[in-house]
Amino acid sequence: MNRTFVPLAALALTAAALAAPDPAAGPVLAPGEIVAAAPKADWVAIAPPDLLVMDLTPDAKARPRRVVIQLMPPPFSQGWIGNIRKLAAAHWWDGLSVNRVQDNYVVQWGDADGEDKAKAKGLPAGLASLSQDDYATVAPAQLSQSQFVNFSGYSEAFDDIVKGWPVGINQDETMAPAHCYGMVGVGRDMPPNTGSGAELYVVIGHAPRHLDRNIALIGRVIEGIEHLSSLPRGTGALGFYETPEERTGIVSVRLGGEVAGLPAYEYLSTESTPFARYADARANRRDAFFIRPAGGADICNIPVPVRRVK
Amino acid sequence: MNRTFVPLAALALTAAALAAPDPAAGPVLAPGEIVAAAPKADWVAIAPPDLLVMDLTPDAKARPRRVVIQLMPPPFSQGWIGNIRKLAAAHWWDGLSVNRVQDNYVVQWGDADGEDKAKAKGLPAGLASLSQDDYATVAPAQLSQSQFVNFSGYSEAFDDIVKGWPVGINQDETMAPAHCYGMVGVGRDMPPNTGSGAELYVVIGHAPRHLDRNIALIGRVIEGIEHLSSLPRGTGALGFYETPEERTGIVSVRLGGEVAGLPAYEYLSTESTPFARYADARANRRDAFFIRPAGGADICNIPVPVRRVK
Repeated sequence: MNRTFVPLAALALTAAALAAPDPAAGPVLAPGEIVAAAPKADWVAIAPPDLLVMDLTPDAKARPRRVVIQLMPPPFSQGWIGNIRKLAAAHWWDGLSVNRVQDNYVVQWGDADGEDKAKAKGLPAGLASLSQDDYATVAPAQLSQSQFVNFSGYSEAFDDIVKGWPVGINQDETMAPAHCYGMVGVGRDMPPNTGSGAELYVVIGHAPRHLDRNIALIGRVIEGIEHLSSLPRGTGALGFYETPEERTGIVSVRLGGEVAGLPAYEYLSTESTPFARYADARANRRDAFFIRPAGGADICNIPVPVRRVK
Repeated sequence: MNRTFVPLAALALTAAALAAPDPAAGPVLAPGEIVAAAPKADWVAIAPPDLLVMDLTPDAKARPRRVVIQLMPPPFSQGWIGNIRKLAAAHWWDGLSVNRVQDNYVVQWGDADGEDKAKAKGLPAGLASLSQDDYATVAPAQLSQSQFVNFSGYSEAFDDIVKGWPVGINQDETMAPAHCYGMVGVGRDMPPNTGSGAELYVVIGHAPRHLDRNIALIGRVIEGIEHLSSLPRGTGALGFYETPEERTGIVSVRLGGEVAGLPAYEYLSTESTPFARYADARANRRDAFFIRPAGGADICNIPVPVRRVK
């Protein structure tokens, strides 16, 4: 597969063309208004088995805290996702906890005693061992050449959205999911360890793109991230809590198909015309608050819209 | 001033050269280790009058909550910063509150009744009126051509660090501070309103660079951001709290020169060799945890190191 990297100047021209408002196009809509007006046919259902539902212990005011995660489709990270399905089916996370909250970085959960062999909770049988090679996957020959400026700050990559997910495309013909806000990944020890999927984290700060291709990403939080991002920061090294009392308990983690009464969710097709308009509007804000459109946006500032089915 | 924009290909070559480890250079250090080893001479003192110290009401466990903000030096946003000095000198924020916490976006504080003319707290006399033209300033003829890959996702700009601050450099010969995590800006109404400086916000998510050149940035949080970023998210529109009880009270806001016992702070000179090495290491992680250096980093993933003076 040969692919020509789009030079900066060409992208600038594209942006300039997009930035010119078309008077015939009607009123200028904000990105959220474009999404709200997208026809039902452009929304893609998320199958319940592709959801991971984590219930934390209730908060200090006894309010429930549910976090809903969408697992990635093939070809991304399927080895770890297979393990995660087994761990959820075994109810493995029940009774464990959120153990690490590092400001502008990640919230991490799993077995607080995981590194202590004498106390660690054993893993279910049959989990797959994964390889560092599995952090990235072969890029499709036909990439969706986006209609917006979405190159990244990476010399060996450009960014795109593939099958509804933000990815970096590398010069070695591979692609890897991008560490944007809300993305969920697999904690691991030093390489060549690649983690099993039992230890998970979510990004709660500026995109730490240096983790791309170094850790497996397996999904994204689509609802309830505030129950993780607003937790007190840990005061130990790397934001780990220094005392067990500071941890937040996990009541249960289940695949969506096992959760009674779960709402249905859908995302805006990233191949749809409304998504292209939304992405363009994120890159070139023309709604009333703005005076100077940016002329571009990085991929992590164009989050894929997800909603409960109306 | 004429400036040649560095093409993508040239930056890629630079990154490739930097990515090759030099065996004679000694052990591979993580970015934090490079900063820790920087000689005292490369650290720049932050004058106490350039600090804004906000004490919130104590938390639920009666622990103090102090947020320390460094105000930007000339030529950035000095009109608003002049107003902020007057507001702090008048103790204007004392008794007001944090009113808005929007996940992956901003925390905002000021007068919760600011939009209600009948109830709004009056502003001190003598505040300057600012212009939209003041969001950006003339770029210096000699920009510090950074030694790392730091171009942004913007068709009309590239990114740099000037006088210790992340900025976007625009093709119209101006530069504007960049909305990175922790940066503090001036809330405003619809344009042409530019805000006085009485209503402030801090970025607590992925860099919302679409706000650059649309709102004034006046500084950055250098200590205590966790007291803002971990607050409960507001459930009203734009993350505003729906009831007064949810707000967090501001005990006082003072310029650093007025605060007894304030520690001294310093930042790593962004013109220093250790900073160049730190930035290169952020863009190309070679410490033991990493298997594939990214080959680049966006400006908001290279935060300028700030510390208490030892």
